[in-house]
Amino acid sequence: MKVGVIMGSVSDYEVMADAVATLEAFGVEFEKRVVSAHRTPDLLCEYAKTARSRGIGVIIAGAGGAAHLPGMVASMTTLPVVGVPVKSRALNGLDSLLSIVQMPAGVPVATTAINGAKNAALIAVSILALGDPELAARLEAFRTRQTADVLKAEI
Amino acid sequence: MKVGVIMGSVSDYEVMADAVATLEAFGVEFEKRVVSAHRTPDLLCEYAKTARSRGIGVIIAGAGGAAHLPGMVASMTTLPVVGVPVKSRALNGLDSLLSIVQMPAGVPVATTAINGAKNAALIAVSILALGDPELAARLEAFRTRQTADVLKAEI
Amino acid sequence: MKVGVIMGSVSDYEVMADAVATLEAFGVEFEKRVVSAHRTPDLLCEYAKTARSRGIGVIIAGAGGAAHLPGMVASMTTLPVVGVPVKSRALNGLDSLLSIVQMPAGVPVATTAINGAKNAALIAVSILALGDPELAARLEAFRTRQTADVLKAEI
Amino acid sequence: MKVGVIMGSVSDYEVMADAVATLEAFGVEFEKRVVSAHRTPDLLCEYAKTARSRGIGVIIAGAGGAAHLPGMVASMTTLPVVGVPVKSRALNGLDSLLSIVQMPAGVPVATTAINGAKNAALIAVSILALGDPELAARLEAFRTRQTADVLKAEI
Amino acid sequence: MKVGVIMGSVSDYEVMADAVATLEAFGVEFEKRVVSAHRTPDLLCEYAKTARSRGIGVIIAGAGGAAHLPGMVASMTTLPVVGVPVKSRALNGLDSLLSIVQMPAGVPVATTAINGAKNAALIAVSILALGDPELAARLEAFRTRQTADVLKAEI
Amino acid sequence: MKVGVIMGSVSDYEVMADAVATLEAFGVEFEKRVVSAHRTPDLLCEYAKTARSRGIGVIIAGAGGAAHLPGMVASMTTLPVVGVPVKSRALNGLDSLLSIVQMPAGVPVATTAINGAKNAALIAVSILALGDPELAARLEAFRTRQTADVLKAEI
Amino acid sequence: MKVGVIMGSVSDYEVMADAVATLEAFGVEFEKRVVSAHRTPDLLCEYAKTARSRGIGVIIAGAGGAAHLPGMVASMTTLPVVGVPVKSRALNGLDSLLSIVQMPAGVPVATTAINGAKNAALIAVSILALGDPELAARLEAFRTRQTADVLKAEI
Amino acid sequence: MKVGVIMGSVSDYEVMADAVATLEAFGVEFEKRVVSAHRTPDLLCEYAKTARSRGIGVIIAGAGGAAHLPGMVASMTTLPVVGVPVKSRALNGLDSLLSIVQMPAGVPVATTAINGAKNAALIAVSILALGDPELAARLEAFRTRQTADVLKAEI
Repeated sequence: MKVGVIMGSVSDYEVMADAVATLEAFGVEFEKRVVSAHRTPDLLCEYAKTARSRGIGVIIAGAGGAAHLPGMVASMTTLPVVGVPVKSRALNGLDSLLSIVQMPAGVPVATTAINGAKNAALIAVSILALGDPELAARLEAFRTRQTADVLKAEI
Repeated sequence: MKVGVIMGSVSDYEVMADAVATLEAFGVEFEKRVVSAHRTPDLLCEYAKTARSRGIGVIIAGAGGAAHLPGMVASMTTLPVVGVPVKSRALNGLDSLLSIVQMPAGVPVATTAINGAKNAALIAVSILALGDPELAARLEAFRTRQTADVLKAEI
Repeated sequence: MKVGVIMGSVSDYEVMADAVATLEAFGVEFEKRVVSAHRTPDLLCEYAKTARSRGIGVIIAGAGGAAHLPGMVASMTTLPVVGVPVKSRALNGLDSLLSIVQMPAGVPVATTAINGAKNAALIAVSILALGDPELAARLEAFRTRQTADVLKAEI
Repeated sequence: MKVGVIMGSVSDYEVMADAVATLEAFGVEFEKRVVSAHRTPDLLCEYAKTARSRGIGVIIAGAGGAAHLPGMVASMTTLPVVGVPVKSRALNGLDSLLSIVQMPAGVPVATTAINGAKNAALIAVSILALGDPELAARLEAFRTRQTADVLKAEI
Repeated sequence: MKVGVIMGSVSDYEVMADAVATLEAFGVEFEKRVVSAHRTPDLLCEYAKTARSRGIGVIIAGAGGAAHLPGMVASMTTLPVVGVPVKSRALNGLDSLLSIVQMPAGVPVATTAINGAKNAALIAVSILALGDPELAARLEAFRTRQTADVLKAEI
Repeated sequence: MKVGVIMGSVSDYEVMADAVATLEAFGVEFEKRVVSAHRTPDLLCEYAKTARSRGIGVIIAGAGGAAHLPGMVASMTTLPVVGVPVKSRALNGLDSLLSIVQMPAGVPVATTAINGAKNAALIAVSILALGDPELAARLEAFRTRQTADVLKAEI
Repeated sequence: MKVGVIMGSVSDYEVMADAVATLEAFGVEFEKRVVSAHRTPDLLCEYAKTARSRGIGVIIAGAGGAAHLPGMVASMTTLPVVGVPVKSRALNGLDSLLSIVQMPAGVPVATTAINGAKNAALIAVSILALGDPELAARLEAFRTRQTADVLKAEI
Repeated sequence: MKVGVIMGSVSDYEVMADAVATLEAFGVEFEKRVVSAHRTPDLLCEYAKTARSRGIGVIIAGAGGAAHLPGMVASMTTLPVVGVPVKSRALNGLDSLLSIVQMPAGVPVATTAINGAKNAALIAVSILALGDPELAARLEAFRTRQTADVLKAEI
């Protein structure tokens, strides 16, 4: 299974590139694409509805402002959808966060911190690792290295 | 031209009934329906894409929480879409408001106050009145009566 | 019918120029003017009360902070009024947004996102397009191009 | 000089009655009236423009939501205007507060706490007391009693 | 693989019972327990560190206020952790939401809406369904029924 | 009567200089001083308690963060106290605003916008003008010029 | 050394009683009193300045709204001051919290959660326990019991 | 007794250096270390549990975002824990503040202002000074100098 990384506009890629880099570092197959909920609704529908059959296991969707992309994708697939609120210009991403996280009961989006694209990738990795012991080992190793880096930090 | 009044769930009708009552008071033709962005995305697409051809001139959409209905309808029609943020349980409608009003450039939603269903209807009336002098007269009369009511208020 | 674009101060034009540019791109006739609710209240009254008779169909009003311009214009005309909350220095436009959108029942302002001047123009276009099939076609074309631009985006 | 107490709607009187009661307790002459910025803009203009000549020295204006009354009165008089943000239903008066207090440089509103009608009256008293030693003495006495009440409080 | 449902206090079960009921409805095996980050930190460590070996695949953690439970569990396991911000008394869950969702890069928590316990269960189901076609089918069926319920809603 | 302008720290003078400049422009006598509620509480008490006898008619107090200066001055004088919330580093002055404006019933502070030092001076002028027709005339003239400046603005 | 528990008004005792009950349970000597920053500033000065000489080791101060009591006490003593933001009517204690916690560098207030009176007492106990091994043992025992209570919780 | 200064990441030292400098200025012994709640949970447990026996009297913990460090340390020691909310990138430290201050009853964190590292050190000094008259004298002297600095400030 691979990960689908989508975002609402080209400018979101500045943030979402962290997700891509993390997936690459873990050797997880992925595809990436700009899919705008508001400007390409048909692509959104097609993307969400065909995701599972195209071999996607987890969808990571980043958007800012009235960030409808993650929730709308979630409405058209039963795959796990991870939403990344992209920091917005006026309200610093509080609007993005609330638009993504406050989904009604029945259609969930697993939401990360504002600009939390790296963590979105790590959530995807942790999900895929449930069925992939080698990936699970790589995730453990990543966390061990991360801990070691902090332990040797000097101030 | 008639007005389409939609809302994300049955419970939103408590708020959206104000829009319906106002349209009725003005003698404006309308249809009303529950259309959930997250639970009936196909209906949403169909509703938005066929609205103009079904004789609708303005769409009023109310939703709460991660309120994607107005914005997603707006993404699939060029009709004016008026969004009503419905007061939500935890965040009092601040989430609904930001989810609806913070649309990206290119796809607008004309947003009212939290629970502003009556004003959504009045916006629709003001739009339709541009091409309907009689309706415009009724709107003027409504405002004149409203002013008179305040003028005779006693405290 | 033309569009009236007003704003509370000269400095708001940095934001409101987007509305003007969009109306120009659609070939919609408009007039633009600084009208300050607080510093030129008489001009505000005169502007609002004569707008319809001067051939205006939609008023776009942008203001920041205690942004009273859109609501006060709306109190003196039955034309559709579109309010643009201009990003403010201290509170990033949250004050502007709430001052504009939280209108009481009876006098509506159709509100856009913070700094959403382009969308204000698009709302005006969508309203005027109801009575102008050619303008409606131009709006459809704009949206089609906008979709195409996203579809060919590369990341 | 007397105090003018105005409010945006009859329902605001639940809050604004505190101002009236306080003025009465101080023996300050006052008049009270519902003046709606949005529903009676002409009355608003007339009220503000004639206030000084009618013998008013301070205006207290209470309003909720998109609370434009205090600021618009202030735009049409040079009398001191005290604004009282009335607690609103959805946003608990945060919208009222920001709409009233965030006035642009040039046209001030002296703002109280949310629902701070009693303090609005006390501000008016303190202003009038500058030219009225007897009233100043009453204000001192009020504060002395207030202090004494706290000093004898038992818990 | 089963789901571990934990919460910071007994009182959180009012909210978290939705997660339990949903897992039961899907026939997903689970265990439930009160684990307080602040009052039982040793249990927290033990719970998190042994979760995978005890056959848990996804952990759902609900907490309110300074809600540290989900993030601290996530720091000691590489399993997917779903965090549920429980509505708090003073700040309506905004504190819970920010405490849970704003995790630093490296240790993610997949966050739901305030009180979104049902959606937490649905996220867990969607994750487990990736390796369980029958569960996937049940999830599809759930969504189909949910859509049908909205379609026949009458207002 | 003169105006006392105080502020919590030297750095607040960047903002409060607007008040001083405005008072100078109106020819209103004033004194200015750094008085810190938290670092010079004795000076604060002395300042507030002797203000009236030193010929002060209105006190303007600016402070940021946990901005206690205006409220504490108000607790020790019955003169009108105008509070200016100075924009703070982390929270943009929202903390300053709430700390100043949310005074309990009994001890009022007349609050301006965040960084509203110019308006604080204008409030002081409007208060003093009640007993000074010449100053009242200057205030009218200021407002007339201000209106004229907007009327000739070009965009 | 004893603990001084003060609060801004009688009504705050509903919240602050938790602090008193906790100190009693730990056998810590204390005195309690209503001291209003705004209504009894002289008492506030006297209380703060004489606290150390009266044998007080820690001061707990609770207040709501523009909650100046803790910070002003802290400005007149070098004893540790623990501030309790009391939940306020309009803004749920967000104003109280920011007014208390956002103290400028130089004069600190150790702040608890909104309505966190019990924790204020526990902070006082932990401070006094540094010089009182028996009290330290009681604090350890309290925490052990607290942990045990959670461990036997059933849901 | 010495002070333990910990922080969630190396980058927090920019803020936390103020605490270190202040402790140094007061001649208070301290140790400093990066301890990440999320990346080094085992170190966190060990640090908190051994703090008292290692001669630490007060712990100062700074963290940003979902700032769990202070609260988790507090859960594993009965020493006084002072929490410093570090300003975060997206939400300016509001998330850090709420994550730290909103602790549940039973496990307190004494919280400072956002970026209030200097005040955290002053709280620690005031606590240690209760058992160290010489340190108490130094604290008094610091405050006297601080007052003098303000008194000679010129604007």
